[in-house]
Amino acid sequence: MAKRRGQDAAETDRRMRAAALRLFARHGYAAVSMRRIAAEVGVQAGALYTHTPDKQTLLFSLMADHLHELLDAVGALPADATPEARLDRFVDFHIRFHLARPDAVFIAYMELRNLAPDNFRAIEGLRRDYEAWPEAILRDGAAAGAFAVPDPKIAAVGLIAMLNGVTTWYREGGRLSLDDVVAIHQRMARGAVGAGGA
Amino acid sequence: MAKRRGQDAAETDRRMRAAALRLFARHGYAAVSMRRIAAEVGVQAGALYTHTPDKQTLLFSLMADHLHELLDAVGALPADATPEARLDRFVDFHIRFHLARPDAVFIAYMELRNLAPDNFRAIEGLRRDYEAWPEAILRDGAAAGAFAVPDPKIAAVGLIAMLNGVTTWYREGGRLSLDDVVAIHQRMARGAVGAGGA
Repeated sequence: MAKRRGQDAAETDRRMRAAALRLFARHGYAAVSMRRIAAEVGVQAGALYTHTPDKQTLLFSLMADHLHELLDAVGALPADATPEARLDRFVDFHIRFHLARPDAVFIAYMELRNLAPDNFRAIEGLRRDYEAWPEAILRDGAAAGAFAVPDPKIAAVGLIAMLNGVTTWYREGGRLSLDDVVAIHQRMARGAVGAGGA
Repeated sequence: MAKRRGQDAAETDRRMRAAALRLFARHGYAAVSMRRIAAEVGVQAGALYTHTPDKQTLLFSLMADHLHELLDAVGALPADATPEARLDRFVDFHIRFHLARPDAVFIAYMELRNLAPDNFRAIEGLRRDYEAWPEAILRDGAAAGAFAVPDPKIAAVGLIAMLNGVTTWYREGGRLSLDDVVAIHQRMARGAVGAGGA
């Protein structure tokens, strides 16, 4: 019975988070109450408070989990021999990871304004940890003479912004395959950082 | 008196739009009522309905006006001799125009989901009209042999996304001047489209 209750709790937690992500992305954090999330999950509002102390903590936890997952995934990328190959792999990774999580991407940008100051700082810290990955690739490439990058920090943020753009328009079954889109962005990214082979 | 009433009406309209823009950007369209906008303006909610039939029309009108202003401004840019110079000028223009209008930029992205279908199509049409400007620069540059761009449409959207990124982090008085930031992005943009002088 204890095991069954634990499974039920884990399942409610998972469903609460999925519902909150979907509702926040659709209607915005401010417009969605815990009561509405509970209705979507099919439980009483009070039942959610055994899973999260409040809506703010739930928002923070959704955003932090997204970034932790992103950091784990980028950290697990195989090491490549050359800066060009590392950049290509990063571009491929970033586009596919974010396309698979449209609601989390939307919330990551849109709901920053609704984070309490401490939570905002924590999320900004995680975001900077992620930006450090492409930045390191650009620094290494510049040091090796493979790239020409006057400001690796700005260039890394600019690259990420360019790649994020794909999530705003790409739809499966459109004019270009995802492989095409990735290849075009790999080429643009190499060019943007002055890689010789661009 | 009639003139005075006309001036008052124009001033109320201006203040209603400014308040709606600020409140939508801060709290989200769904969370802001016409009553709240009226309170911000200092009039009764009913008084707003002589200026807009409803909140949806007000949102659409704010987004459409932003895009019309953008299209007028990009259309008024001086013609430059070379594709490289046109690209440089576009980058400079796009960054400065959007940095000056953070609330409109935020709403343009965030509130697309809250547009009625017809309004959504109209806004998407205006956005595509704007994307056609950098796309034309890239096509002309490719035709002149100055750029190497396999897909001008995707490249134009990718460039815009990269430049929009600046609005999410740039703050006056930071490490880099706006001129520095523009110059770095001009260089990245030239590189991304394979301009020889990048």
